Amino acid sequence: MMTRDDALSLDATDPLAPLREQFTLPPGVLYLDGNSLGVLPKATAERLQQVVTQEWGTGLIRSWNSVGWMDLPQRVGDKIARLVGAGPGELVVADSTSVNLFKVLSAALSAVAADAPQRRVMLSERSNFPTDLYIAESLARQHGCELVLAEAEELPGLLDERTAVMMLTHVNYRTGRMHDMAALTAAAHAAGALTVWDLAHSAGAVPVDLKRADADYAVGCGYKYLNGGPGAPAFVWVHPRHVERFWQPLAGWIGHAAPFEFTPGYRPAAGIARYLCGTPAVLSLAALECGVDAVLAAEPLSGGRGAMTALREKSLALTRLFAGRVAATCPQLSLVSPSDDARRGSQVCLAHPEIGYPVIQALIARGVIGDFRSPDILRFGFTPLYLRFVDAWDAAEHLREVLATGEWQAPEFSRRHAVT
Amino acid sequence: MMTRDDALSLDATDPLAPLREQFTLPPGVLYLDGNSLGVLPKATAERLQQVVTQEWGTGLIRSWNSVGWMDLPQRVGDKIARLVGAGPGELVVADSTSVNLFKVLSAALSAVAADAPQRRVMLSERSNFPTDLYIAESLARQHGCELVLAEAEELPGLLDERTAVMMLTHVNYRTGRMHDMAALTAAAHAAGALTVWDLAHSAGAVPVDLKRADADYAVGCGYKYLNGGPGAPAFVWVHPRHVERFWQPLAGWIGHAAPFEFTPGYRPAAGIARYLCGTPAVLSLAALECGVDAVLAAEPLSGGRGAMTALREKSLALTRLFAGRVAATCPQLSLVSPSDDARRGSQVCLAHPEIGYPVIQALIARGVIGDFRSPDILRFGFTPLYLRFVDAWDAAEHLREVLATGEWQAPEFSRRHAVT
Repeated sequence: MMTRDDALSLDATDPLAPLREQFTLPPGVLYLDGNSLGVLPKATAERLQQVVTQEWGTGLIRSWNSVGWMDLPQRVGDKIARLVGAGPGELVVADSTSVNLFKVLSAALSAVAADAPQRRVMLSERSNFPTDLYIAESLARQHGCELVLAEAEELPGLLDERTAVMMLTHVNYRTGRMHDMAALTAAAHAAGALTVWDLAHSAGAVPVDLKRADADYAVGCGYKYLNGGPGAPAFVWVHPRHVERFWQPLAGWIGHAAPFEFTPGYRPAAGIARYLCGTPAVLSLAALECGVDAVLAAEPLSGGRGAMTALREKSLALTRLFAGRVAATCPQLSLVSPSDDARRGSQVCLAHPEIGYPVIQALIARGVIGDFRSPDILRFGFTPLYLRFVDAWDAAEHLREVLATGEWQAPEFSRRHAVT
Repeated sequence: MMTRDDALSLDATDPLAPLREQFTLPPGVLYLDGNSLGVLPKATAERLQQVVTQEWGTGLIRSWNSVGWMDLPQRVGDKIARLVGAGPGELVVADSTSVNLFKVLSAALSAVAADAPQRRVMLSERSNFPTDLYIAESLARQHGCELVLAEAEELPGLLDERTAVMMLTHVNYRTGRMHDMAALTAAAHAAGALTVWDLAHSAGAVPVDLKRADADYAVGCGYKYLNGGPGAPAFVWVHPRHVERFWQPLAGWIGHAAPFEFTPGYRPAAGIARYLCGTPAVLSLAALECGVDAVLAAEPLSGGRGAMTALREKSLALTRLFAGRVAATCPQLSLVSPSDDARRGSQVCLAHPEIGYPVIQALIARGVIGDFRSPDILRFGFTPLYLRFVDAWDAAEHLREVLATGEWQAPEFSRRHAVT
């Protein structure tokens, strides 16, 4: 059984330990919610001041050319591409995850409608993040398709000659369970279906290799493990074999082949730029770039293994440590996230049939920030960029104390907030 | 003929003159491009630092509740509503103008499909801003409708029993010509059609009264006269009589009736909130709020007439002054924007068949920033919030000098930039 001193020893020899210095961590806070909102990189505030006071305030409209505002979706996209196994020029940052899902699902359904119109089923996981299911539901209605939801284990068996698209979130937001992207993509392709992957809980959290997995379409979130700030823009990737076959219906001017010719007919830009729509959100893009840079900073510390491989190793060690301590000290809680490393994302999820919500609130009152996901999940995200082994140990100890003392029973911890 | 001293006298007695102090104007710059990107309010940098370092950096995920991040789309929306004649709770800030146009056009087409399926024509103006036409083209394809483009004068005569929706930009981006929103809306309604208004060059620039005009749907831009910064989020309004009849296809989780219940089926929120989609872009929303506040600051200086009435009076005086000086001193240029006050937005547009582009570049080199719009338009936006009468006089004088000296002929002024 690991002691607190063991955890401190792991921190002392952790090659990634210096990465924590890139972040502003409020004193007295143990932050296990980077899977919901990543923490603030120190570089962000200064960079935003530069963008606001110099690029906008002084440069004004000239900055679209002079400092490359127009290229930000591609520039930040190329950096994210390195974290998810995509090539340069294949991925852009734009809009929200929901809007990008609408784009890629629309394009995928158009591709199938052209090639195999008898395929009318979109397949997804019942416990997928709701916005993914809402967007799919909307497009199913529009395209006259059926949205079939199933448990993870049932998915391979449901792929057949009626399946148009299988849309999955790589790491489940509630359970932390990670799909085998390569195997499921191969199964989908074998059945003649396309795949759409939501990397919201993967990008910057676990190694992803979109090209090697031969995925078709992907989207992902900028404000979780990429540390882009609240409501940061999202990203969208399309495999080069599909990207120019169709364009997506949000055919705004920035996705046009020549936006500044101001011509009335839509001609989609070459490549992934056709997945852009409105004017780039410069302030948000600048903030996101700082967050992505903080992840890429793991590269030189990775001993040649690559940023995500090194981060993954630490992430698994952190989640093992926390889950192990909880299993030993909190028998009331059951482990929902997989104990198998290969199937677990960067979070530990616990369940209690009744007291999950007040326990999380009591932890937050102690400065240990996780979150609650209805109806019964206590969710703890472990971001190896800024969390130490001793943090994982201490968090488990706080959880044990909250349960042992009964402090979760205080009435204020049962009061519900709008955002939980 | 007005002299420079006359212009200085107007500034000395201008009740709105103090508003200029709210903005950061770079020295040596005469900025006539607020119709493309508004200037930086002084409050914005400090507010963004607060959002970044305190709300995000220290508050982290807790700020969604504790400082009301989740309400920002409505809070900033209610402020914009006061500038465009919409009621509280009727307008939200979200996404880009293009994406919001997609939402309202989709909803309008759904409404017509339910009530009058024989109406299959979307009517718009040939010189509408391209992104509006691209989005309409995309939806026309999807809905099996025809997109009919016409000159402004032809529009009333084209409204008939086949017209589903008339979609117009209130103030034309190239010519500065302003439609009579109330008259055209009445004509559309008389023909049984719905109206969609793009207020990109209107919100914060000219008085708009959506409710009094009985408009159906509207969208608008945050980074022009609302000073929200490059790529600021846009806004969307739907008349209360339509808002709950349909929902738009970008059915993301933030538009759901209960986003944090994480239920798999989409139930749209009550009212305009169903026009939200992804997670609110907090940093951008905070910056936009500062820009909108800078417009609302005209209210107490308006002598009880209202912010937009007072700003409009000054805007018209500025554009009259500039256009008058140019007419007197630059006979090579023709006036494209309407000379009739009632039909002109807050910009002056001039045309020259050959030398428009290098003349604008030569002006920019002098620090007089207007812009060029293909193929022949020199465009000058006049923002009464931060421009003085003497600025309008000096800008005309610079233009006269650029033409008189022939300095526009320098080779560097013919080199094209990506963004012009």
